[in-house]
Amino acid sequence: MVTITKADGKAEYELIHLLRSRSTEVDKTVTAAVTDILEQVRLHGDAAVRDCTVKFDGHCPDCFEVPRDVINDALTEADPDFVESLLNAQANIAEFHSRQKHQSFIDAKANGVMMGQRIRGLKRVGLYVPGGTAAYPSSVLMNAVPAKIAGVEELVMVTPPAKNGGANPDILTAAAIAGVDRVFLVGGAQAVAALAYGTQSIPKVDKIVGPGNIFVATAKKLLYGTVDIDMIAGPSEILIMADETADPKFLAADMMSQAEHDKLASAILLTTDEAVAAATIAELGRQVEHLERREIILRSLEDFGAVILCRDNGEMVELANYLAPEHLEVMMENPMEYIGRLDNAGSVFLGRYSPEPLGDYYAGPNHVLPTSGTARFFSPLSVDSFIKKSSYIYYTEAALREAKEDIVRIANKEGLTAHANSIQVRFED
Amino acid sequence: MVTITKADGKAEYELIHLLRSRSTEVDKTVTAAVTDILEQVRLHGDAAVRDCTVKFDGHCPDCFEVPRDVINDALTEADPDFVESLLNAQANIAEFHSRQKHQSFIDAKANGVMMGQRIRGLKRVGLYVPGGTAAYPSSVLMNAVPAKIAGVEELVMVTPPAKNGGANPDILTAAAIAGVDRVFLVGGAQAVAALAYGTQSIPKVDKIVGPGNIFVATAKKLLYGTVDIDMIAGPSEILIMADETADPKFLAADMMSQAEHDKLASAILLTTDEAVAAATIAELGRQVEHLERREIILRSLEDFGAVILCRDNGEMVELANYLAPEHLEVMMENPMEYIGRLDNAGSVFLGRYSPEPLGDYYAGPNHVLPTSGTARFFSPLSVDSFIKKSSYIYYTEAALREAKEDIVRIANKEGLTAHANSIQVRFED
Repeated sequence: MVTITKADGKAEYELIHLLRSRSTEVDKTVTAAVTDILEQVRLHGDAAVRDCTVKFDGHCPDCFEVPRDVINDALTEADPDFVESLLNAQANIAEFHSRQKHQSFIDAKANGVMMGQRIRGLKRVGLYVPGGTAAYPSSVLMNAVPAKIAGVEELVMVTPPAKNGGANPDILTAAAIAGVDRVFLVGGAQAVAALAYGTQSIPKVDKIVGPGNIFVATAKKLLYGTVDIDMIAGPSEILIMADETADPKFLAADMMSQAEHDKLASAILLTTDEAVAAATIAELGRQVEHLERREIILRSLEDFGAVILCRDNGEMVELANYLAPEHLEVMMENPMEYIGRLDNAGSVFLGRYSPEPLGDYYAGPNHVLPTSGTARFFSPLSVDSFIKKSSYIYYTEAALREAKEDIVRIANKEGLTAHANSIQVRFED
Repeated sequence: MVTITKADGKAEYELIHLLRSRSTEVDKTVTAAVTDILEQVRLHGDAAVRDCTVKFDGHCPDCFEVPRDVINDALTEADPDFVESLLNAQANIAEFHSRQKHQSFIDAKANGVMMGQRIRGLKRVGLYVPGGTAAYPSSVLMNAVPAKIAGVEELVMVTPPAKNGGANPDILTAAAIAGVDRVFLVGGAQAVAALAYGTQSIPKVDKIVGPGNIFVATAKKLLYGTVDIDMIAGPSEILIMADETADPKFLAADMMSQAEHDKLASAILLTTDEAVAAATIAELGRQVEHLERREIILRSLEDFGAVILCRDNGEMVELANYLAPEHLEVMMENPMEYIGRLDNAGSVFLGRYSPEPLGDYYAGPNHVLPTSGTARFFSPLSVDSFIKKSSYIYYTEAALREAKEDIVRIANKEGLTAHANSIQVRFED
């Protein structure tokens, strides 16, 4: 299912092409269909949302909004152990993200000049949560917790109506725990459009976050600018660096925890040890038999899995930086020594007891991460994703008089005499 | 040229439609032409860049890169007063932006668990600087200074060749002052493509910033994801809130400092005082006569200027928050009292001696600001625009053992048994 390849400068080049090839081009018919849905919702509001919901989900709830007591009931009726686990995860996520919060600053000078940067949470944010098998309570926590810490005033969740006409109870439970303010039973491009434009019953938001299918992703992309959006997530990936101290059993398990997401997911092992490489491949074969999503795992490993034998640790670091993976596990003897050398990764998992699912659910850092090599320039979802900044300037007459000559000189050099005039007019006569 | 309108709940609604109507739709032929240029540069590198440069600029330099000594010469040969003014501006910009810099953090727990967020400057950033009359040295400072403070390793500037085949000397002077590392004489969509893909002579970057014409803006938009980009800037705008203490001479001058940018620029005055409104309109007529860009100003005021009479200060605040302007001047008796009430603005200018051009050139805060109402969710360009974050997780065996049950429970609830397996496999035997 996976064979061993030697790193030779060509292998990694082919690999990156293979990985990038997963970013599926959006079909023109999808873009056209979504463009039409957006336009209908913009023009006709709730009526259009209702039509789309009946068309795509087969039925439409009488009222889109889920009443507060239904959300509360989901929490009180949920399995207490599950609630406890989510509460523990939430506490860790909240603790980590609260360290990301920045303060507004002011620079007040002795001459009376004052300047600053004000930081505030966005007023209203929309959170898309898919339905069906991709309805993940962990995703609700990872999006909602940082938003609330950032100071978002109103967090609005949308999720497609389940077959029974209601919402997925696990999702509602997570929403109650994470402090989601309002929940609407609507999904697809029509839900994204409703959040961006506002309708009679669904409020207009400033930013839309959360994963979704190709219709949801296309709608977000098309509405970028009307509202802000988070990253457009590509297929998931894990890269593992392993030396001879790594346990093949752990390596295989971690590769498959990524591979099970999606047949486009990618799991790549870099190792300097041929025996570790061979044993990991054997473990993949052994462990996969017990896993529910066996077929997805096998397909993903076949198409986008790899085991690459590297000359030395330096070559592994170089390859990791080159591939810029979403998740990077460092299964090496002294994992901490690598932190400062790993330039491009969404999240780094250090040592034998830090498997990637620990980060997906529990440890605290966000699981919404840049994919497809974009960790070169994009960052994990964070409190910063839910704030806006403004700058403030106050000058005194004396301070402006002192600055006058410089400003007028630069303005004139740029040919912008009305800019110069706005300074000069203040010191005429 | 501008008439007085009373705020009545309808006026502001019409106003926002008028403002939004300025966001010109990108012609399909532009998108097609730019898509073709990007593809040519991706496939053929320098040769395609050269072909495009000859085609669009009429001639192409033998070597794209401007030698270091030519950049240094521009600085030493420039008017010393102009250099002094730029240095003063740079010092203020650097002082303000250095306050925006955030540190990496680590959360090391007593049980041996360690988690953190690492912050680093992007490795390589491309800065687009237009040629011709829109070649603004101030724009070089406002983009380059925060990038260098963020820790960007290499800052690469591209700018179209001037008619004499060289670079605009003011731009080179600003580049030398701001610490730009390399300068290439290439412009248009081909310059953006070269930065995104890399060519034989132009290095591939992680992010592209800076203003440009419709071809440059379209290229950036299409390449978003291949690289990161800054905001796509719309036409500029200023909103002024003025009470009876405001000086109509200042108000008119400041409106025109914005109006001169572009015939799509917008300058709007909100005031509670009818006499101030009338006197400002008279001042507009008087002052415009002396200004070089008179025709642009008159056209912009005619199409997108407005003087709106408000009932009280509260109505002005409400309208300002509704319109979310790029620049907001508070020409009121106690301007500081409004800071906490102004929710949406790129940059706020407080009091009589803080005209908008002070912020364009000199005070310190960035002049690259969200336009067209996007201050609702976008922020000014800042040090944060040039960094990337990664998270790090290290767990001990004991800590993972303690977390095991929660993680497995959530994973199984989500139907992701390979996620659960990656935890369980570590505690088998």
